[in-house]
Amino acid sequence: MTEFMHQPLEEVAEALRAGRTSAEALAEEAIARHDHLDPVLGAYKTWDPDGALAQARTADAAFAAGLDSGPLQGIPISVKDIYGVKDLPTYAGSPRRLPEEWEAEGPVIQALRRQAAVITGKTHTVEFAFGGLGTNTHWGTPRNPWDAKVHRVPGGSSSGAGVSLCEGSAFLALGSDTGGSIRIPASMTGNVGLKTTVGRWSTAGIVPLSPTYDTAGLLARSVADIAFAFPGIDPECDDIERFRQLLAGVEVAGLRLGICDDLFWDDCSPGVAEGVKAALDEVAARGAKLVRIALPEAAEASEIYSKVGRGGIAAERSAFLSSRLPEWLGTLDPVVTGRISASGGMPAGGFSNRRSAELAASAGRRLAAVDLLASPTVPVTPPAVAEVTGMDGYHSMNMRALRNTSIANMFGMCALTLPVARDQAGMPVGLQLMARHGADERLLALGLAIEKTLGTARERLGTPPLCRL
Amino acid sequence: MTEFMHQPLEEVAEALRAGRTSAEALAEEAIARHDHLDPVLGAYKTWDPDGALAQARTADAAFAAGLDSGPLQGIPISVKDIYGVKDLPTYAGSPRRLPEEWEAEGPVIQALRRQAAVITGKTHTVEFAFGGLGTNTHWGTPRNPWDAKVHRVPGGSSSGAGVSLCEGSAFLALGSDTGGSIRIPASMTGNVGLKTTVGRWSTAGIVPLSPTYDTAGLLARSVADIAFAFPGIDPECDDIERFRQLLAGVEVAGLRLGICDDLFWDDCSPGVAEGVKAALDEVAARGAKLVRIALPEAAEASEIYSKVGRGGIAAERSAFLSSRLPEWLGTLDPVVTGRISASGGMPAGGFSNRRSAELAASAGRRLAAVDLLASPTVPVTPPAVAEVTGMDGYHSMNMRALRNTSIANMFGMCALTLPVARDQAGMPVGLQLMARHGADERLLALGLAIEKTLGTARERLGTPPLCRL
Repeated sequence: MTEFMHQPLEEVAEALRAGRTSAEALAEEAIARHDHLDPVLGAYKTWDPDGALAQARTADAAFAAGLDSGPLQGIPISVKDIYGVKDLPTYAGSPRRLPEEWEAEGPVIQALRRQAAVITGKTHTVEFAFGGLGTNTHWGTPRNPWDAKVHRVPGGSSSGAGVSLCEGSAFLALGSDTGGSIRIPASMTGNVGLKTTVGRWSTAGIVPLSPTYDTAGLLARSVADIAFAFPGIDPECDDIERFRQLLAGVEVAGLRLGICDDLFWDDCSPGVAEGVKAALDEVAARGAKLVRIALPEAAEASEIYSKVGRGGIAAERSAFLSSRLPEWLGTLDPVVTGRISASGGMPAGGFSNRRSAELAASAGRRLAAVDLLASPTVPVTPPAVAEVTGMDGYHSMNMRALRNTSIANMFGMCALTLPVARDQAGMPVGLQLMARHGADERLLALGLAIEKTLGTARERLGTPPLCRL
Repeated sequence: MTEFMHQPLEEVAEALRAGRTSAEALAEEAIARHDHLDPVLGAYKTWDPDGALAQARTADAAFAAGLDSGPLQGIPISVKDIYGVKDLPTYAGSPRRLPEEWEAEGPVIQALRRQAAVITGKTHTVEFAFGGLGTNTHWGTPRNPWDAKVHRVPGGSSSGAGVSLCEGSAFLALGSDTGGSIRIPASMTGNVGLKTTVGRWSTAGIVPLSPTYDTAGLLARSVADIAFAFPGIDPECDDIERFRQLLAGVEVAGLRLGICDDLFWDDCSPGVAEGVKAALDEVAARGAKLVRIALPEAAEASEIYSKVGRGGIAAERSAFLSSRLPEWLGTLDPVVTGRISASGGMPAGGFSNRRSAELAASAGRRLAAVDLLASPTVPVTPPAVAEVTGMDGYHSMNMRALRNTSIANMFGMCALTLPVARDQAGMPVGLQLMARHGADERLLALGLAIEKTLGTARERLGTPPLCRL
């Protein structure tokens, strides 16, 4: 049997349309890989093989009838367990199943349904998506498949999403990103992650963390896969032909990549900054320009985020839980919840204040000189779960993991991470590309050009040790 | 056999999903009605029964597999012959088939395809969509089915769209509106028409008339049908559940309807102003408030449109034809083309000038006091074709027909027409509802509440004499 999990989604889609495979065969491949790998890796809170096979048969019947309902028809997709999915429980990383209203399907899942995509199950998340490392004491922490010896964190809060892609139990994964919750797990597991511009994809039907910053987005095995899937979900990208022309028309030659010495490159684990720098040099060798830019706003925004922002997001979460799920307040993991009580009277959304807006506007003016801002996605190598079980170990590592990604959230940008290296611990290293508010399509086009230069994750990093069948 | 053409689309869609009918049966009903009525009415330039049946079988296979790809799955839809539709010729009302590039499908048709909608054929249009009466000397003028004795115009430029709905050869019709080209034919044929906010629906894949003002939109037998179909096409309405809640939550009680004595009510044919006024009084009796507002900007905008605008749109059209379809310039109907040469050196888009923008902004401030602006859609009864064959007769009648609708285009508003009466000639009369830029969803919700009060076209106006089988 041909394996499709390592083929680009565009080729999988072509094979489906040409009858060289079927959605049912893809679902069976995903199920076989899940059954082999997930007992060790633990990506899923809820695994739904019967539902996946039924959805696959629907997709196949539509193909047989000649209906092309969109790019995701028949594609196996995992869904972070904070999205409502009909007939599957929503836990949102908490110890108990949420009320049924949280199983109602919002626009992103509706888009999957209309296309007869195949939802394989619901992946683990940090409790109420609050935390960048991916740990969960209620349900266990998915294992990062890049270290065969030590149980390292997979990144979070979309902690099972990246792992599901490594397994091949899904060919695409839905996550959400408030301060880095898509990009961190994507980077830590050697996958690509897209944080969309805030407000662009509806977050209705998703358990909220911070209404101010929550975004829905995708993890995939390549930028090409995300670019393939994007118009199937994005409401603004309504002309697939035009978007594909945009993708085909972009080259790295002449591209201006902003490099900011402030903040982003500080205190990296061995091999991280080096790996990203080497990748950027490769892109520069193909004609891109690396442009040093000063961005003093980033350091101040990061300080606001770490001192005030986490409290502000926690306050938004607490406001939500108090009003909608008060019984869930008592069972919050104290380590993940951390010093929220210490943030005291922080009002919900209180850090999205005038100073933050000034910083974003000022940074926006500086960034107009470049096409993208580039940085390491996560400065630190994924720590062992054992390193981050105590409150102090957890808190400082969590803030370091979130440092570079949270800037894009604070500045209202969209952002992409793609794997470019392995660090001295052998763990994946991500290159973060940030673009201005609303420039998601152009970000994907530029990211795709860079991926074509650097090679895909699989070509560049190989296969995770725990996923070699 | 049950007839479905008089049932609300929502019920048709339920019947399809419950297996009480099939897309193939609906297509057969549409074909039977076309074959019976279209030889007299002449709605279509290109009729495609084989294609419709094939698309219907695709939709049925998808239903059988349990796939719900969107609200339009299996619904017979006619398409104005300025939209590109694969494998069907595009004439755009001109004497010759346009080059194949104009058969490429843009986002609106792509949305229909993804949902396995059933395209029945391509309806007649005024040559290059330039004109409000619906006449076409190259291919003949569709007959308005509301007068059994005299061949009256059906309205234009989407001249076959409304007639296709009266026939029942389509349950929904795609049109386009630059100065009234959806609302005028909808009003004149007793149908509902929606002009979307400019820029909201992509016009890619549609032969352009005026890039400044062109909009894609829908004609249907009721506001309810347009509201049902809207989220299947509209890229911003990405959450069907939320939209349906919005629709369900609106009532006429407390609604503020702006009535402007300037311009809109002048020089109406007997029975037009009376019919619209009576309908508004019925709405007021259910608790809506009729608010008189002065809108001096409307008269000036209308003057700009009639003196300069038509020349500006013609200049945009000429610029397009000169650059893309130069051979089509020589065969333009001189009556429809009219006094374009007299507009002389008008630059393309030249009337969308600072004064127009000032008027729109000023009108917008006045209109903030009301929910909707209400008026007769078309002040004149649909004239006999014989009355408008000469250049002078055509030009003055065309400008009168466009007077009230063009204001919404000039002010950047979205607008809806719904049939509310028959005039003294027995012809349909439309109530035009205009809402602010981008408020398309709210416009539909308010229009639906008004339709519930007044009754649908069929309930209120009956069946056109030429469509009584």
